[in-house]
Amino acid sequence: MLSKNEVKYIQSLCHKKQRQQERVFIAEGAKIIEELLASNYVVKKLFVTEKYLLQNRFTNAVITEVSTQEMDKISLMDNATDVLAIVEQKPNEMPAVKGKLNLVLDGIQDPGNFGTIIRIADWYGIENILCSNDTVDLYNNKVIQSTMGSFVRVNVWYGDLKTVFQKNLLPVFATVLNGKNLYEQNKITEGFLIIGNEGKGIREDTLSFVQHSLTIPKKGGAESLNAAVATGILLSWLTK
Amino acid sequence: MLSKNEVKYIQSLCHKKQRQQERVFIAEGAKIIEELLASNYVVKKLFVTEKYLLQNRFTNAVITEVSTQEMDKISLMDNATDVLAIVEQKPNEMPAVKGKLNLVLDGIQDPGNFGTIIRIADWYGIENILCSNDTVDLYNNKVIQSTMGSFVRVNVWYGDLKTVFQKNLLPVFATVLNGKNLYEQNKITEGFLIIGNEGKGIREDTLSFVQHSLTIPKKGGAESLNAAVATGILLSWLTK
Repeated sequence: MLSKNEVKYIQSLCHKKQRQQERVFIAEGAKIIEELLASNYVVKKLFVTEKYLLQNRFTNAVITEVSTQEMDKISLMDNATDVLAIVEQKPNEMPAVKGKLNLVLDGIQDPGNFGTIIRIADWYGIENILCSNDTVDLYNNKVIQSTMGSFVRVNVWYGDLKTVFQKNLLPVFATVLNGKNLYEQNKITEGFLIIGNEGKGIREDTLSFVQHSLTIPKKGGAESLNAAVATGILLSWLTK
Repeated sequence: MLSKNEVKYIQSLCHKKQRQQERVFIAEGAKIIEELLASNYVVKKLFVTEKYLLQNRFTNAVITEVSTQEMDKISLMDNATDVLAIVEQKPNEMPAVKGKLNLVLDGIQDPGNFGTIIRIADWYGIENILCSNDTVDLYNNKVIQSTMGSFVRVNVWYGDLKTVFQKNLLPVFATVLNGKNLYEQNKITEGFLIIGNEGKGIREDTLSFVQHSLTIPKKGGAESLNAAVATGILLSWLTK
């Protein structure tokens, strides 16, 4: 049984400001909770239905059993699942980028795109994603859910991209119109690969650091590809 | 100025049954309307704000000017744009598949994924998408919007996939665990490429027609890729 205050508190965590103040976020669903419990994230509280409780064992989590009606109230998803966690955010630490291919996101706004990009990074073994400060919040519920749990294996950092490029003199790649044919580019083992905003692309400021321009060859009529789809295609070729 | 009945009618078109009965659908936003007006789709009515009216010229469309408040009421989007169209659906005709690489969707459920797949098909010059009857409706507003207008250049057909494979003896490709490395597959100029449901993958029934199994090589920890991202990666390699 949840108190009114508990319900209000959990619901308030859909707001970025509240999440930042409390240094926590919400994750939902059996798959993601399983990934979280096996990771170095700290799960502060678990809210579970009777069904989930009967099917699972826990060692180190504070558990509250809730009814499905209560779960509907606290869930941020259209269809609530049987388990919801309050999880501690990680400190924003710039990861080591040398000797690795790192993704750089310049203002990605759509939570689904961002989550999908994290999942792609995890698929291709990309350890680091460096985000401009105006990129959508990693701890947004829709981002977390669309990673399908991959966020536990990828370092996500927010900060000033200009400083990143100035302090780390690695090759910088990006897709532009009329760049080098992606299919003719060799494997990249070290550097930054920039993905731009869904509508506006890569900012002028960021573009000035690009040394290697690539283009995904097109055969049809579409003007552009979705940002996450482009990331998938790029990484499939650049890590092959 | 819109009557109450007009508002109700437009709002009702978010339901598939209503759309099927009326044989129409809703499209919104300047880019998509521009694509529609230049295509062989029949735009039955355009609802535009004053701002849009001042910036655009029309020849063959029935236009109603509406206030931004009215646009908010009839729009199916979170943020209404300056133009909304009621458009005639196309008849469900099976396209010619010989000599072409055709996409086959086996129960794709997410409207955003489907729309993005149509956009990818358009990018790679894929003319036909054949969908199982339980694939999400092409004329769902979220599908139309996430195509970014590409649906005007791609034939989308719904029907029984089994019959398609039985009547058209072309090579059938799909991704599975432990298939042939995608990167070692030659270009495909004719056949069917099956994309499975987001959670359940490809049905047993459909799988029995697959002659060529492919796998997208993985280097990290993610269990799977998003269906649209996988489609993008597959087409980038299979059409190269």
